[in-house]
Amino acid sequence: MDSQFSSYLLEDAVNELAKLPGIGKRTAMRMALHLLKQDQNHVDRLGESLMRMRKEMMFCKRCHNISEKPICSICSSPKREEGFICVVEDIRDVLAIENTGQFKGLYHVLGGLISPMDGVSPSDLQIASLIERIEKEKINEIVLALSATVEGDTTNFYIFKQLKNQEVKLSTLARGVAIGDEIEFADEVTLGRSIVQRLPYTGV
Amino acid sequence: MDSQFSSYLLEDAVNELAKLPGIGKRTAMRMALHLLKQDQNHVDRLGESLMRMRKEMMFCKRCHNISEKPICSICSSPKREEGFICVVEDIRDVLAIENTGQFKGLYHVLGGLISPMDGVSPSDLQIASLIERIEKEKINEIVLALSATVEGDTTNFYIFKQLKNQEVKLSTLARGVAIGDEIEFADEVTLGRSIVQRLPYTGV
Repeated sequence: MDSQFSSYLLEDAVNELAKLPGIGKRTAMRMALHLLKQDQNHVDRLGESLMRMRKEMMFCKRCHNISEKPICSICSSPKREEGFICVVEDIRDVLAIENTGQFKGLYHVLGGLISPMDGVSPSDLQIASLIERIEKEKINEIVLALSATVEGDTTNFYIFKQLKNQEVKLSTLARGVAIGDEIEFADEVTLGRSIVQRLPYTGV
Repeated sequence: MDSQFSSYLLEDAVNELAKLPGIGKRTAMRMALHLLKQDQNHVDRLGESLMRMRKEMMFCKRCHNISEKPICSICSSPKREEGFICVVEDIRDVLAIENTGQFKGLYHVLGGLISPMDGVSPSDLQIASLIERIEKEKINEIVLALSATVEGDTTNFYIFKQLKNQEVKLSTLARGVAIGDEIEFADEVTLGRSIVQRLPYTGV
């Protein structure tokens, strides 16, 4: 009772909120005080939606995307093109690519990128299960849709080496000046690469 | 199922998290995906601590601080000095002042500051109940511990005017160069005021 918080209920809530990524004690306190001023219903909806999501959701056994069933809705859809896999870092990338409506194949979620600095090695990621999929399923093409960072490049290269003896087409996302961007503000590496990898202009 | 989220459980959790102050949809998504990777126990502790805090906590009827009983632990403590009230904006200020260990009186939490710009008028705050307390309880001194902003000054002045006919000593926090701060980086208003309100040097 004589603690910093004057209440263990508040302390408890603040400590739990502060475990969320990017949330410090100060922000957690602001959130807790905000919730104290809300209706009981509002707070119950928040708490229950989190517990229910954790309880009822799982990871797809095939592509490791989030799912409400053992095999996710994308993997089990007859509309998706089998044998065409897009490799991504995490679930947010699946959502981002799905939102474009431009990809009709399947996914494979690695769950991270190789990063010796952060102690993430290939065995921490779903790379072995990707190789296994390529051996089992009839795969025509794999698009590596990883971030254009050192970790992304390392992971691309590791997968490339692992697939050396496989007959599968490997591709990566096109890199270049973003649509809507002004040339003068593009970074020089991107701009340089987009000149080297220039495309024929078709008038469209 | 074909929505942006591929799961209504995830969508629900993200929407609820995004109602927290300062949390947008992107951060809410990051939090939800983080929670999906945690143990069920961990997520249950978070959800339940929030619901329990909201259910069992209330506001002290005397000083409007948060409390687990109708009268808070500070107001009901025999160790605190009656008749000495520190007026603060919100509960975080009570915690900050308690942490200094320098104040042994009671508090009065206004619940905000007067701000015509944000549509906060004196009647939205616990000012009437402060005046009532001064009339009922035997108060010797009130310290106005409000922020050194336009809103804080306005609120200070409003309370000052309301208490004109009361026999109660009013004080505010000392303002000046913060301990540990270098003079050259102090803002000129603070520095100017700290020269005008200079204190006798006692060699301590």
